[in-house]
Parts: sequence; structure tokens; C-alpha cells
Amino acid sequence: MGLIIALDPPEGVDGVRWCLRIAERLGRVPSGYKLGLPLLVREGVKGFSDVVSVIKSDLIIADLKLADIGYVNSLIVKEVSRTGVNAVIAHAFIGVEGGLDELAETCRSLGIKLILVTLMSHPGASRVMSREFREMLGIVKEVGAWGAVLPATMPEAIRAGRELLGGDVKILSPGIGPQGARPGDAICAGADYEIVGRLITLSEDPLSTALKVIEEQGRRVRECRCGGL
Amino acid sequence: MGLIIALDPPEGVDGVRWCLRIAERLGRVPSGYKLGLPLLVREGVKGFSDVVSVIKSDLIIADLKLADIGYVNSLIVKEVSRTGVNAVIAHAFIGVEGGLDELAETCRSLGIKLILVTLMSHPGASRVMSREFREMLGIVKEVGAWGAVLPATMPEAIRAGRELLGGDVKILSPGIGPQGARPGDAICAGADYEIVGRLITLSEDPLSTALKVIEEQGRRVRECRCGGL
Repeated sequence: MGLIIALDPPEGVDGVRWCLRIAERLGRVPSGYKLGLPLLVREGVKGFSDVVSVIKSDLIIADLKLADIGYVNSLIVKEVSRTGVNAVIAHAFIGVEGGLDELAETCRSLGIKLILVTLMSHPGASRVMSREFREMLGIVKEVGAWGAVLPATMPEAIRAGRELLGGDVKILSPGIGPQGARPGDAICAGADYEIVGRLITLSEDPLSTALKVIEEQGRRVRECRCGGL
Repeated sequence: MGLIIALDPPEGVDGVRWCLRIAERLGRVPSGYKLGLPLLVREGVKGFSDVVSVIKSDLIIADLKLADIGYVNSLIVKEVSRTGVNAVIAHAFIGVEGGLDELAETCRSLGIKLILVTLMSHPGASRVMSREFREMLGIVKEVGAWGAVLPATMPEAIRAGRELLGGDVKILSPGIGPQGARPGDAICAGADYEIVGRLITLSEDPLSTALKVIEEQGRRVRECRCGGL
């Protein structure tokens, strides 16, 4: 099952130590890890590298939600790629020419997977983003992105995304736990990976909670794909 | 005249020293300075603080193009506010509820001016952003942002922005110099500040170029407002 751990340290703790402790405890149990811009700003490229260096998964995502012109986004990705991450998240809404075309090229040359946000689940996203959702999926295909972010709380959008994107583009879905979706919801709707943060990282025993989430994903997927058999 | 210097160090130089040299040379000549996310990622919060500490202008903008949910954007702004910047740039397209409402509240509590991108000038922006331009201007008003970013290369959009936003919201316009607009173009169309980077920072004598830009802004504004009298 595809489980990605969002390593977002709470305020007021030593961010690097907090991440290291969880990454060491979980090891290769999840398929990947996701580190965010708050950690990068707080701990710098050096702290980011320290966390990446202990991660054993093949997928290490820098969730920067990049949303600038191609040249500026490329500068940032070049810098961040030195930390050892192998995937970055940017916004599809920036568009292609002079935006994501240049970023996609930079990512290809650095061996970095490009993942594009196509929809978000906070209520404000209904104002502009939802209306442009299909256009965003078209942009994902056009630039040949490796993956697309779609909220686990919106299974209909995941189904539409899978249909439009075909089978080659990975779908990554945050929103499991406190935000409302259950483990397995997004995978049942067509996602490849579920991104889980606090539900696991703030639990008393992150390893046993992660194993429970993976078990639950498996159970739900057997249910939705095989009618419970 | 409103001139903001974009301090974007080229690749391969010591970013902090490059910024310090220009900021010291220009002093209080510009109305403000803008620092970007590439500098923050490259030099960390410490390097960012070092640059901010020598800037004497009243307006010091962190151009982060924030585009995440309110909680995450707020975490980043709290961190960055410690460097001494007093304004941040985020994206209007994120929408209000659970997005910019929370960020605006954080900015207010920290005394940080919130500036929202409503349109960009790279060709790819015509795909999604241009279509949503008026919606974005509505979002600027709704969250009570201090300012809006509109490209100097699109005077018609600046005119429309000024009309919709009224006189209280500042309009900041990048795109002067290599990107095609001339000093004064945006102010003539209704902007308050023109953001100039390479045209000044990469010139042989940044101070004398900045003074020439300000003179040119004044000349153009006299022309457009008083018919050259």
C-alpha cells in the first residue's frame, strides 16, 4: 500500500530532532516521506539535509508548493535538490509557458520528480481552484509531471483525475485523519499514495499506528475492489 | 516616486554579500526592497536577517509567493517575521476560507503587510490566472490585503485593478527593464510602486541607475498626468 508520511514538526520543538526520531522509528515501513516549506525555512538547507540523510525510503518529497515563474522555481529546486530530496511539489495553476515548462526541464535534468497540486480541500479552494480543476489536470499531462496532488476528502475528484490522467501519472492524496478521510478512501477512489501526517506522527507510538494505517488501507482496498472477499 | 528594488542575487555569488553591497549603496533612495524565496532557501533565515538588518527603507518585502493552506502559510510567516521583514507576498488564488483569512489574521497580529499576487506576466499565466483575475481582485478586497501585485507589462490590468480595488490598496508592479515595461509605465496606469531588479542591481553603478529610473518615472508621470506640462 502507498503510504507517505508528512513530517511536519509542531511549533516549539527542535524540528530536525523531531523528524529524525520519527524517520528512524518508521524506517522503510512507509513508501515515502514528505518535508514541508516551514521546516526548510525554520531549519535551513542544512537541517533539511540532516533529515533527508536518515530517510531510507526511495521517495523523499519537498512540499514547497512552488508558485513562481519558471526561472525562480528552478533556482529554488536546484538549491533544494542538493539536500537529497528526489521529488518537489509545485502548483499547476501557474501554467506552462515560462512557468512549468522550465521547471519540468530543470527537474528532468536533476532527476527530480515533479508533482503538481491540482486541487486543495480547504473551503477557500472552491472559489477559484475547483473551477479550474480540469484545466489543471490538462497542465499536469502537458508538462509530463510524475504526479498530481488531489485531496483524499474528495473521492469524486480523484476518480475524475484518474480518468483524465490515465494510469501513468501518480496521484498523491493528503487529508487522512484529522481532516476527515479514512485510510484507504483515496486509494479506493484511484490514488496511488495516501499522505498521512499528524494521525501517525503525533500518535503515542508512530510505528504501530503506521502499521495499523497500512492494515486499514489493505482491508478497505480489498473491500472496495473485491466486495469484501 | 515608488521604487522597490528586487534583491535577487545571481547564481554562483555569495548571496548575502551581494545583497548587502547593493542595499548599502542604494540606502534610502528606493522606497523599499524585496527579497525572494531563492535567497531564503539558499542563505537561510540567518542570511535573510543579515540582509534585512542593513536595509534602511520602511518597506521590506519577503516575496515568498505563499500558496498553501492558512495554517502552513502562517507557520512560514511567523518564522520569516523574525528576520525583520514587514511585508509578505502570497497568492490570491488560494481563496479565503481556511486559506487567506487565517494568513491575513496572522499578518495583522505580527504587524506584517499582506500583499497578494493577482496576475503574472509569463505567457503560461494566460491559461488559468488571467481568466480568474477579477475573482482574485475580489479576494484582495475581502481579506483586507495591504497590496496587490500586477504586472507592469499589462497596463490595462493595472487600470482595471485600480478601478476595482479603489484607492486604499497599494498596487506593486514588477516587469520593468528586461521584461519589457519602461519606468513610469505602471505608475501611469495606476500603480503605487514599480519593482525593479536586474535593470538596477546588475548595472555597473546601481545608485546612479536607480536615480535615473526615479527621474524617468517622474518625467513619465508628469507626461501622462499633465500632458507633459
